[in-house]
Amino acid sequence: MEIVRPTLLLDKNKCLKNIERMVKKAESLHVDFRPHFKTHQSAEIGEWFRPYGVKKITVSSIRMASYFASHGWKDITVAFPVNILEINEINILAEKISLNLLIENKEALSCLKKFIRFPVGIFIKIDTGYNRTGILASRTNQIDSLLSELKNSGFLKFQGFLTHTGQAYHAQSRHELLNCHFEALLKMRILKNQYRKDWPGLKISLGDTPTTSICDNFDEVDEIRPGNFVFYDLMQQKLGSCTFDDIAVRVVCPVVAMHSSRNEVVIYGGAVHLSKEWITNTDGKPLYGRIIVRKDGEEILLDEKNYVSSLSQEHGILKIAHKDFDYFKVGDLVEIIPVHSCLTANLMGQYLSSDGTIISMMR
Amino acid sequence: MEIVRPTLLLDKNKCLKNIERMVKKAESLHVDFRPHFKTHQSAEIGEWFRPYGVKKITVSSIRMASYFASHGWKDITVAFPVNILEINEINILAEKISLNLLIENKEALSCLKKFIRFPVGIFIKIDTGYNRTGILASRTNQIDSLLSELKNSGFLKFQGFLTHTGQAYHAQSRHELLNCHFEALLKMRILKNQYRKDWPGLKISLGDTPTTSICDNFDEVDEIRPGNFVFYDLMQQKLGSCTFDDIAVRVVCPVVAMHSSRNEVVIYGGAVHLSKEWITNTDGKPLYGRIIVRKDGEEILLDEKNYVSSLSQEHGILKIAHKDFDYFKVGDLVEIIPVHSCLTANLMGQYLSSDGTIISMMR
Repeated sequence: MEIVRPTLLLDKNKCLKNIERMVKKAESLHVDFRPHFKTHQSAEIGEWFRPYGVKKITVSSIRMASYFASHGWKDITVAFPVNILEINEINILAEKISLNLLIENKEALSCLKKFIRFPVGIFIKIDTGYNRTGILASRTNQIDSLLSELKNSGFLKFQGFLTHTGQAYHAQSRHELLNCHFEALLKMRILKNQYRKDWPGLKISLGDTPTTSICDNFDEVDEIRPGNFVFYDLMQQKLGSCTFDDIAVRVVCPVVAMHSSRNEVVIYGGAVHLSKEWITNTDGKPLYGRIIVRKDGEEILLDEKNYVSSLSQEHGILKIAHKDFDYFKVGDLVEIIPVHSCLTANLMGQYLSSDGTIISMMR
Repeated sequence: MEIVRPTLLLDKNKCLKNIERMVKKAESLHVDFRPHFKTHQSAEIGEWFRPYGVKKITVSSIRMASYFASHGWKDITVAFPVNILEINEINILAEKISLNLLIENKEALSCLKKFIRFPVGIFIKIDTGYNRTGILASRTNQIDSLLSELKNSGFLKFQGFLTHTGQAYHAQSRHELLNCHFEALLKMRILKNQYRKDWPGLKISLGDTPTTSICDNFDEVDEIRPGNFVFYDLMQQKLGSCTFDDIAVRVVCPVVAMHSSRNEVVIYGGAVHLSKEWITNTDGKPLYGRIIVRKDGEEILLDEKNYVSSLSQEHGILKIAHKDFDYFKVGDLVEIIPVHSCLTANLMGQYLSSDGTIISMMR
């Protein structure tokens, strides 16, 4: 297929390698692997996990759970605080598949208890330091209160504790990231030990892409739920979760204008393609993507002095070092490595696989 | 329709008022009105312009031009530097409708000249100070060079000069905004006067949402192309282009968790719904949206101390003043006014109109 406009290119081999690497990691850690499918949002890419025996998945919405359930996935955790307004959709799903939901407050639990008509698994969402949402691991009175409600509930089956160590994304060094993980792990293990006498078999679910890519201590963890690893991206590369070579997605964009007087190149590729997620470049300025060019068929990753420096709806502005300006000309295609592949994939809506096929996503 | 998940609500009456106000403004300025349809991207909303006699539109991509052409629009300007890789799609469109393209360099012009097979109008893209793209208004040697090429071109019909005063978005005051506009206007008028002896009938096209909403001097301007005014948003309100009451879109989001210890409320509504576009709040922190609650059926716009303070893929975090915390409870719906309605609409993919119907968009 000829590429003439912004196109999300997926390197299938890299993606398969990323999947295989994480499967092996889970095996070596003796933990269940419940990959998060919110990154790719694609039934076809989901199929690539099956040969490895993956049967359990994580998603971030009831809609996404319905999509993957309709594509044959029978064991799904919705890793988002349960939205009780979707009780009808929850009941429809719970009748068909093994569904796990997240609870962190009495309001949602009471409502769920009242209206649920089929068995569902319940994880209590724990905040181990990210402070986005969940019950602080130290607030065992709140946990006790939910558990006492769960004890008398017919359809709601307590499964264990679940956390997302999102604070790892703010780590400034490998050491800090290891610390984030270890602190979260410790908090979850304490909960497991404290509650397992009353709830034998309870699980702890822990492990996002940075920690599962970098850390090796998952003692007593029952399940990991990384998602982004399937593609990786600049944010992960910066954290040390992956190398540039592991990143499986790029947005291919046409060059439409050149401004040599200010060392800028304009591409057709903007906020509606890449998303406005950014990291800081070496000068502390927002960086929305890194740039790959091709010369004589060879692929060249330009250094960080060359980067996507701003985005409007459809325009992307590349800052280009003087010495590298000659790599570009109007009508060329350049490849942009996205900062956050989950948001880029969500915007692009489909993939062009390296084997030449179009891979569709949930719409 | 019952709302149970993030939903883009469109107040049709406000939208119609916004359209009517801009139509009247264009009439009073004696300029052609060529609204930019990249904001709504919807054939149905496009129809709302027709009763006002609107026949010419602006879009930001060839794909969008094809979509609106297939919905009966016959005069379309693609306000983006022409992407010569799309020459086949351009020829298909040029055969069917009056198509205007933007040129700012010889490479694209030469290629277009070589491969175009039907008449198209050509605007030269001028940079009047935004410094995103276009030929600097002072570089008349570059303009001359393009015009000499255009003189001998069968299918390429020079139409005039077009600019986007995007620098107006960075204005810190009404005075500064007026200055941005006046400077751009002056530069465009100079070009018009300089070139109209050789190109009688050439047009100047100027005018985005902030300047057309706020400024009154459009002397010698032939056409305005605002787009965002159809919905407006927080960014426009901050610039003074509109009042809160003019903003026609909101994202309705369920409340899923409350964290009173840190005055935070968690909503189902994240970066994949609102986009990561932000403005700064009164404390200089990123603000991703303002909040409307309802009490006893009455709508209350909370003050700026209450705002969307961070977004991940599906989660939104609201910072809530202590005194306003009681407006929220798990299972409620809250309404978020988006920072940038173009990006929000693009992500949401459809509207729920205030008359209860679903309005679809280009996908």
